[in-house]
Amino acid sequence: MSNKIRWGVLGGGGDSLIGVLHRVASSMFDAYQLTGAVFNPDFEANKGFAEEIGIPTNRIYPDFDTMVAEELKLPESERIQVFSILTPNFLHFPMAKKLLECGFHVICEKPMTMTYSEALELQQIHQKSKAIFALTHTYTGYPMVRQMKKMITEGVLGAVQKVDVQYYQGWINPIIHDKEQRKTTWRLDPSKSGISCCMGDIGVHGYQMLEYVTGMDVQSILADLNHLYDDNQMDIDGTVLLRLGKYTKGVLRASQIATAEENCLTVAVYGRKGALKWEQENPNYLHHLEDGQPIKTLKPGNAYNSNLSLDGTKLPPGHPEGIFDAMGNIYKGVAKAVRNQPHDPAEFPSMRDGVRGMHFIETCVASHKEGNVWKTL
Amino acid sequence: MSNKIRWGVLGGGGDSLIGVLHRVASSMFDAYQLTGAVFNPDFEANKGFAEEIGIPTNRIYPDFDTMVAEELKLPESERIQVFSILTPNFLHFPMAKKLLECGFHVICEKPMTMTYSEALELQQIHQKSKAIFALTHTYTGYPMVRQMKKMITEGVLGAVQKVDVQYYQGWINPIIHDKEQRKTTWRLDPSKSGISCCMGDIGVHGYQMLEYVTGMDVQSILADLNHLYDDNQMDIDGTVLLRLGKYTKGVLRASQIATAEENCLTVAVYGRKGALKWEQENPNYLHHLEDGQPIKTLKPGNAYNSNLSLDGTKLPPGHPEGIFDAMGNIYKGVAKAVRNQPHDPAEFPSMRDGVRGMHFIETCVASHKEGNVWKTL
Amino acid sequence: MSNKIRWGVLGGGGDSLIGVLHRVASSMFDAYQLTGAVFNPDFEANKGFAEEIGIPTNRIYPDFDTMVAEELKLPESERIQVFSILTPNFLHFPMAKKLLECGFHVICEKPMTMTYSEALELQQIHQKSKAIFALTHTYTGYPMVRQMKKMITEGVLGAVQKVDVQYYQGWINPIIHDKEQRKTTWRLDPSKSGISCCMGDIGVHGYQMLEYVTGMDVQSILADLNHLYDDNQMDIDGTVLLRLGKYTKGVLRASQIATAEENCLTVAVYGRKGALKWEQENPNYLHHLEDGQPIKTLKPGNAYNSNLSLDGTKLPPGHPEGIFDAMGNIYKGVAKAVRNQPHDPAEFPSMRDGVRGMHFIETCVASHKEGNVWKTL
Amino acid sequence: MSNKIRWGVLGGGGDSLIGVLHRVASSMFDAYQLTGAVFNPDFEANKGFAEEIGIPTNRIYPDFDTMVAEELKLPESERIQVFSILTPNFLHFPMAKKLLECGFHVICEKPMTMTYSEALELQQIHQKSKAIFALTHTYTGYPMVRQMKKMITEGVLGAVQKVDVQYYQGWINPIIHDKEQRKTTWRLDPSKSGISCCMGDIGVHGYQMLEYVTGMDVQSILADLNHLYDDNQMDIDGTVLLRLGKYTKGVLRASQIATAEENCLTVAVYGRKGALKWEQENPNYLHHLEDGQPIKTLKPGNAYNSNLSLDGTKLPPGHPEGIFDAMGNIYKGVAKAVRNQPHDPAEFPSMRDGVRGMHFIETCVASHKEGNVWKTL
Repeated sequence: MSNKIRWGVLGGGGDSLIGVLHRVASSMFDAYQLTGAVFNPDFEANKGFAEEIGIPTNRIYPDFDTMVAEELKLPESERIQVFSILTPNFLHFPMAKKLLECGFHVICEKPMTMTYSEALELQQIHQKSKAIFALTHTYTGYPMVRQMKKMITEGVLGAVQKVDVQYYQGWINPIIHDKEQRKTTWRLDPSKSGISCCMGDIGVHGYQMLEYVTGMDVQSILADLNHLYDDNQMDIDGTVLLRLGKYTKGVLRASQIATAEENCLTVAVYGRKGALKWEQENPNYLHHLEDGQPIKTLKPGNAYNSNLSLDGTKLPPGHPEGIFDAMGNIYKGVAKAVRNQPHDPAEFPSMRDGVRGMHFIETCVASHKEGNVWKTL
Repeated sequence: MSNKIRWGVLGGGGDSLIGVLHRVASSMFDAYQLTGAVFNPDFEANKGFAEEIGIPTNRIYPDFDTMVAEELKLPESERIQVFSILTPNFLHFPMAKKLLECGFHVICEKPMTMTYSEALELQQIHQKSKAIFALTHTYTGYPMVRQMKKMITEGVLGAVQKVDVQYYQGWINPIIHDKEQRKTTWRLDPSKSGISCCMGDIGVHGYQMLEYVTGMDVQSILADLNHLYDDNQMDIDGTVLLRLGKYTKGVLRASQIATAEENCLTVAVYGRKGALKWEQENPNYLHHLEDGQPIKTLKPGNAYNSNLSLDGTKLPPGHPEGIFDAMGNIYKGVAKAVRNQPHDPAEFPSMRDGVRGMHFIETCVASHKEGNVWKTL
Repeated sequence: MSNKIRWGVLGGGGDSLIGVLHRVASSMFDAYQLTGAVFNPDFEANKGFAEEIGIPTNRIYPDFDTMVAEELKLPESERIQVFSILTPNFLHFPMAKKLLECGFHVICEKPMTMTYSEALELQQIHQKSKAIFALTHTYTGYPMVRQMKKMITEGVLGAVQKVDVQYYQGWINPIIHDKEQRKTTWRLDPSKSGISCCMGDIGVHGYQMLEYVTGMDVQSILADLNHLYDDNQMDIDGTVLLRLGKYTKGVLRASQIATAEENCLTVAVYGRKGALKWEQENPNYLHHLEDGQPIKTLKPGNAYNSNLSLDGTKLPPGHPEGIFDAMGNIYKGVAKAVRNQPHDPAEFPSMRDGVRGMHFIETCVASHKEGNVWKTL
Repeated sequence: MSNKIRWGVLGGGGDSLIGVLHRVASSMFDAYQLTGAVFNPDFEANKGFAEEIGIPTNRIYPDFDTMVAEELKLPESERIQVFSILTPNFLHFPMAKKLLECGFHVICEKPMTMTYSEALELQQIHQKSKAIFALTHTYTGYPMVRQMKKMITEGVLGAVQKVDVQYYQGWINPIIHDKEQRKTTWRLDPSKSGISCCMGDIGVHGYQMLEYVTGMDVQSILADLNHLYDDNQMDIDGTVLLRLGKYTKGVLRASQIATAEENCLTVAVYGRKGALKWEQENPNYLHHLEDGQPIKTLKPGNAYNSNLSLDGTKLPPGHPEGIFDAMGNIYKGVAKAVRNQPHDPAEFPSMRDGVRGMHFIETCVASHKEGNVWKTL
């Protein structure tokens, strides 16, 4: 009998990119067994996909509710333990809610919910349950991001005095300038995507990254967003002033019209004793600056790294890790938690990240609408 | 008889770094002859320095007023044509004012004046004279900055939709955390340095760079500055939201407490058709991004560059140019103007840059003091 | 019934790094089902490992011969289809030989055999069989290496006139200077590792990379190797002059005493019309140089890439791929071949690569021993 | 009276690039006064150029011999002290010979002579004189090359065990493939350029760089050169195996058909305790690798650098230095020597570098012609 964790998947069928990412990540440390799924609302497509990827169809269900009901009928020793929610955004909240209420562990794609109020509700449910909840802010799974967190929270930089995070993409540029396309793209439709595009989709990644690596809370923000066209309802670009303390300030910059940028997430933290800088597109380099010293560049897998950073590296130094490795590390952390093994809370983003993220998104929009005013988080 | 331009220098004696920079720059294209100077308020030191650097002492003067008076007595064919002002900041305005009034051409170190009001006054004087005035925003002299300007103003990027400029240094970090040092450093004393440290010293470089490369005016700004200590009167860090048009937004970030950063000025401009990115510490690379295309990296001296960019390159491609070359190009541009030779206005920063820069600095401080509000420029 | 390919693994148990790499790679495109294994010569450890990674133990066998015999007894529809050989080097040849003779497909870790003569024997066996044979020169699985190959073989560079490949590591440096360690490290013991350390372990990767991306054969070589100590029998460093044609020359440089280098494999190919450069530690960038043009940098996943390059990319551009993705692509290629699906021969390294590689290694050693003389390949 | 060094220039008139480089370099530390010259064999053009660059024409001479004769008539206190030889290559030897014999200090462009035998003769003459002789291997003037030298010679890397130097350019690529051009380009005509093109022009720079930074002598070499066409007499590409000790080996790679490379000179030295890597096109970064440590990147002007490195830096860290700064540093070093001031012999390349360089060039060609055999240096 396999001692793998029984894993269920919601969404992620067909040519879903996110589906591939989660399946590979789940396999990386031999910890999960894909046991059941609703890949697709169409039952035939659903089963077809299961066959295509070569898993048994006996626990492929016609829909989410059936799946939950049927799994609950199984003895605990056979029941799916962890569900991954990879469905369209509006389904994240109701699914997560029900799963947590039923005692299942949840790995949820971002955004956690459509609104801050839903996020608070989910948090309450979670607090009453013993289930584990992980949110896939995948970038925090990179070894050098984890190293950055450890170095900052252990005081290597001294008191933080300046933070700067950027997330620039360009993919909306070709869409936004086409009148038809900007009307019909689901990402720009608030009814489908929530009240924010740029901040909701990527700004929040930057925000979470910042709080993750510093271990600090952003206290207040002032946002200036850009819609680019009068007939576009959604922010596709913006800059957010940040305060993490009276004299700890910073800035978050996000854009989906930074033409031809691919996935340019960067984070820099400046402390009294030094600085750390990292960028997602070159994830295997962490730059450490100190007054009067040569720049030090750290790379994954070397013994000078923290255990948190080293934990996910599978090969000797010099073998590049990528986004799949980052997600794999998050799955590894969840597996430890599920198995009640010792682990660092920093191994996977949590409910708190989700709640703060939704608050951040709504506060950005409010700050902008009210004329670029400061708002408390 | 030499046909070099007769050049006078104010300040820049002894171990002045800026003095070296200007002397070398003046020599780069064989256009200037250092003819007279007041290097130092102490006349003996002044003459001693002239001897040290090997120039005749006959036109080394005891003070500025004497120098102007004596030079005006000389026939025009012998008189100094161009003065470079390298003195402490508070002397820039009175010296530039008198020189322009007397018909001398002026190359002035930044900041042009101590206040916006002085800047406006200087502008009026300049408008009445026929003298040339150049402000040494040195970084605009780099070949790839000039190439960036040409590409943007000629439409290669299409309409600009996002701008991002950064100027991070860390040199104040060791000073600011020492209670004695932060009281005694002249740069942090408003009576000596004007009302702003970070924005006045480096933020304004970023601002001018942005207007230079885009050819656009910033229309309004919202600034959030950081003093780090209650007993420090001057901004040493800050972020400024920018509007260059209803839907053309951006951000300027400057810091002198970005610990261990050296001179990290970067500029990125995103247009509808593409983007350009440049950084001062690696000045010989200009990155051009376009949707669906490989990233193109341009380097100095190649025939694909504009004439403005190629003008200053002295060796074949692959021979790195540095900050001295950038300043040399500005001097070359001024020489052309002095000699009434055809030249591009972009060859040297102008009075207008100085006026706008001073306005920017004062407006940043005002925006911050009034609670981070929008201010028109 | 799963339509996954039934996959058997030889070696790779316990904390084997290579085992992890192959398991994850096999999972990346949902194509393989780990069906049976001899992970370990100790049967208990073997079964224990199977349980640890959560696979059924019913087809975990006590040894290789039993495994082959038992699998052959199964109907073809249940029998393992592909074996991966991850055992110590001296077992590669006898295992691959038997597997091919029995009609199993083989994925074999490098080196394919211990000697060139074994390689030739294996090639003959393979030519008589219909089985697929793949050699895991993993680095050829990177999207930008594949793009490089396509661009060169399609003529983008014109006739190749200069090649330069480097593989620098430093891991033997701390070993070689310790008299005890250099005697006891298996990698430096010819009876365990074959006649070459540096060329056999990494030089051959560079050699194969060069022939892969150019589509050309190296015709002759002259090698100068370095042992560093008189009592060390094995090359740990060396440079090899290459001729790919009368006027197509180049150089291969490999070292395991390039102190503190991690896994610095680079390849540059210069043709009459342009050049391409790539490096393994920054695998997602391919630099394309042409006379008088800006440098073009290509990145994975963009539509301008060839189908061969795009085939393995699972996420949008800007999501870094790593070494696991490279190996995943090789497994994907083998899966297509096993399923008789259309595929590019460049999707996985072949028997020919193995034969040529073994010839290269032995020829390097011979050239060096005979006084650095030219040898035909 | 100026205390500048009286400086004479031979060649470098008109639009000579090298002329600009030397003039600017001479001005960088206010140490030289351009006092006399034969810029051009045409006396009118010669005087015209002097006027164009604004120097007195009274010591502009019709030819070299006249210049020497006339200068010798002047009292020592007025006589030119240092001559820079910027003429076509075949004139370097006779001019340097005569100047040294007459007691003038000499700064000579590379190559020092046309043949090794001339170099030996010049060396003998120099040994009998008290004059200073400097050879402009300009790249050794970069601050981070000087830092590299100091770190290696002071033992930071421990015993050197591997060296690797590269000098790749592509400028001959468009010439060599055109039958007419390759016949008529002076650089490819042995009667004008000596027996080697690639090794003579750039290979020797790499060779000198290697000996400079290591402080070691190359003991023997084996060269493989490439002419690319049967009707081309000159090497335009080549690889040279190097031995600096029984177990200290390395490689020098040079090419002028590395298509579209600009001026890609790189040097890497691996020692028992660490490694240093530098590249000319990004000259302000020196990478220091050590086992188990983050990579350290050193930058100019920081106090952690040696005095030799810091000596030439004129501005605070973060202001890029370029090729002009490198040459300026060499001129500064010569000025110190001329003035009998304390200085490091490493401040300028010497006669010994010139002699060894010519020996290297001829030995490369001999090694190649004799069938790629080892030759002692």
